Amino acid sequence: MRAVDIIAKTRDRQELTREEIDFFIQGYTRDEIPDYQAAAWAMAVMLNGLSDRETTDLTLAMAASGEQLDLSQVVPMAVDKHSTGGVGDKTTLVVEPAVAACGLPVGKMSGRGLGFSGGTLDKLEAIPGYRTDLSTAEFIAQLQETGLVLTGQSADLAPADGKLYALRDVTATVPSIPLIASSVMSKKIAAGAQAIVLDVKVGLGAFMQTLEEARSLARLLTSIARLANRKAVALLSDMNQPLGHAVGNALETREAIQTLHGGGPQDFREHCLVVAGHMLALGGKAAHEKEGREMARQAIDSGSAWEKFRVLVRAQGGDVEAVDDPDRLPAAPIQVDVPAPRGGYLRQIHARMVGETAVLLGGGRMKKGDPIDHAVGVMVYKKVGEQVQEGETLFTIHAHREGDVDLARERLLEAVQWSDAPVDPLPLFYEVITSEEQA
Amino acid sequence: MRAVDIIAKTRDRQELTREEIDFFIQGYTRDEIPDYQAAAWAMAVMLNGLSDRETTDLTLAMAASGEQLDLSQVVPMAVDKHSTGGVGDKTTLVVEPAVAACGLPVGKMSGRGLGFSGGTLDKLEAIPGYRTDLSTAEFIAQLQETGLVLTGQSADLAPADGKLYALRDVTATVPSIPLIASSVMSKKIAAGAQAIVLDVKVGLGAFMQTLEEARSLARLLTSIARLANRKAVALLSDMNQPLGHAVGNALETREAIQTLHGGGPQDFREHCLVVAGHMLALGGKAAHEKEGREMARQAIDSGSAWEKFRVLVRAQGGDVEAVDDPDRLPAAPIQVDVPAPRGGYLRQIHARMVGETAVLLGGGRMKKGDPIDHAVGVMVYKKVGEQVQEGETLFTIHAHREGDVDLARERLLEAVQWSDAPVDPLPLFYEVITSEEQA
Repeated sequence: MRAVDIIAKTRDRQELTREEIDFFIQGYTRDEIPDYQAAAWAMAVMLNGLSDRETTDLTLAMAASGEQLDLSQVVPMAVDKHSTGGVGDKTTLVVEPAVAACGLPVGKMSGRGLGFSGGTLDKLEAIPGYRTDLSTAEFIAQLQETGLVLTGQSADLAPADGKLYALRDVTATVPSIPLIASSVMSKKIAAGAQAIVLDVKVGLGAFMQTLEEARSLARLLTSIARLANRKAVALLSDMNQPLGHAVGNALETREAIQTLHGGGPQDFREHCLVVAGHMLALGGKAAHEKEGREMARQAIDSGSAWEKFRVLVRAQGGDVEAVDDPDRLPAAPIQVDVPAPRGGYLRQIHARMVGETAVLLGGGRMKKGDPIDHAVGVMVYKKVGEQVQEGETLFTIHAHREGDVDLARERLLEAVQWSDAPVDPLPLFYEVITSEEQA
Repeated sequence: MRAVDIIAKTRDRQELTREEIDFFIQGYTRDEIPDYQAAAWAMAVMLNGLSDRETTDLTLAMAASGEQLDLSQVVPMAVDKHSTGGVGDKTTLVVEPAVAACGLPVGKMSGRGLGFSGGTLDKLEAIPGYRTDLSTAEFIAQLQETGLVLTGQSADLAPADGKLYALRDVTATVPSIPLIASSVMSKKIAAGAQAIVLDVKVGLGAFMQTLEEARSLARLLTSIARLANRKAVALLSDMNQPLGHAVGNALETREAIQTLHGGGPQDFREHCLVVAGHMLALGGKAAHEKEGREMARQAIDSGSAWEKFRVLVRAQGGDVEAVDDPDRLPAAPIQVDVPAPRGGYLRQIHARMVGETAVLLGGGRMKKGDPIDHAVGVMVYKKVGEQVQEGETLFTIHAHREGDVDLARERLLEAVQWSDAPVDPLPLFYEVITSEEQA
């Protein structure tokens, strides 16, 4: 078997066998198949697609490319969540402490920001000292002791995915539905998840631009889950405008802390409660999502979710005083408000353009390994459908370099569209797809 | 400008600007753009194509990626030839000495074998001591002194093409018409060619399987030549069956020597005369191809072409005694005849399958840098259309390993198709396309 022949088959739209997929992924994991062959294959997949069977085999091959956690001795039911990535999506920072506070232990491995889209790890690392590189042994020990872990993907788990994910970022092969789906599910399966809540973002600030694409991805994800004997629920959620107000790492961590204290933006809080509700239902702690949502609400309002978060930060070496007093989190020296240049109803706040502005300020990375500035970002105060008066503050730019401010302002104002007539607000969620429905 | 955005444009079928192509090729040449990005882009080109304008810009960018020879002070008219690659194609070894013997100096840089298709360099290296790594200074000096050079592509000329060519070989991006065309023409332009005879192979043993594909390539090649102010003639020649009898490096070198002595297979000799005729016409030594062909015939029959070949071998450090007595060229220890299992008319001798059998025997390379065995290969004695008796020898297998023989025999017999009714022989050439026609 030769890698080049496997690339040629996908190039020619011929279906790969399970053995071919295993050969390719094992070879890539062991560095016997070089990045350039994987890149060519990824582009062939990007343009020609893979069948559902091939995608499932790819997922399982990547999950089997390293250690596979068995959490059955550690937690009664290993429930995980995953977001396909968006702008202002700090959901994990709130949901996981809330769910853990409800008695369902959760250990989650998160990723870094990719282009305009933020990553949970980068937000956590805005907390001084917070370690995101736990070993598998540390992961399991902390999950047993505290019921909550938020760390980076262990290099020992699904290493093939780790390599391929980094490669896709720099080869324009990120927006491939089979590659996205297999990446997500391989990590979850290798990390021992038995049930998964999938937050599939759709809209201008998501990889999936249309409901149809998002639905394809959600169906593929839940189909893989079913074929791999896992339970899954996919939520199709709006990502046309940023979620919550904060976009940028430390800004988002602050907003998550506010939300854990019972405050925070209304849309973001509601989003977190729904995701937490589904996790608690899948994990058997609640009879259904509504009951789970109510449990999560109580965990937040009682302060127990916040306490869980503090335990988490301490367990992972983070500075608890910095989360107790978020003024101690990294802050940008320059803060400039952007007033509304006119009055009217907000018709669009283009999430991707806002995300790209945060990258421009230094808050995201253009290519893998780039350093990022945790302090910078954008506060987005208004939501689509709101009526705004001329001169009201729409955004605050948090910058490190004076020279970035004018361009950031220009970009942010380009992200906004206005209407003279009233505009409906955007929904938070569009659809829910479960692995059972797929059967 | 970022490489990943350029890849994304080609992925999305957006036309690249000349500046973007220059940026990508310059970055790749300087190793600032890594192989994996070039591989992803090459696959995007493979599947989505490039416009003629993009292909011409790519050609010129690759030609400009290194030194560009100016031969105007060295030869009156720099004429070059190129074959798109086939099985048993040792044409260069005969044509160039014949043309040089007619008083038209030729300096050619050739390539190595790629998959089932042989390469002139590998055939030359079957001659003990023959150097294929001349420097540019050595190239020019030898061209001035002897009027004939056959060497490898200098790393200083079109280095971007050298890198991309090697990469395509292992990323299943060889059969892309824009990449083939730009590769061919960038080398020729960088090497200073003012006129080029392009031997575009078509059929089962060529990269172009159909006349339509071959015609597209020929038109693209001549269109690039016109846009770059070069003259070009493209010959569409048959590659359904191997050219001549010998397939394998030393075997082919021996056959070229026989042909230079006035013998050799009839089809191969005729092919060489036509190509030489076009070169002599383009180079202004003959009024038209027919006159050029007659000049080349005389150069062979008079022995002057053979003398030129000896001068060439000596000039490049090769063992002249080994070409004077070809029994001293590398020979395989095992030689096994394959008799016809039945009688009848030969309807097909699948050139690609014969070429793959030579690779299987060790005479070609699976991936770049693989060592090859110059001695092994296959002799193919019959041509499509010939009537054969049961038991007549169809092939001789030249092998190094006893264990290869049975599989090679099986493959060779699979390459043959029979007919009970008479079958027309295959033509040598299908069409001629010139750069003037394209204007």
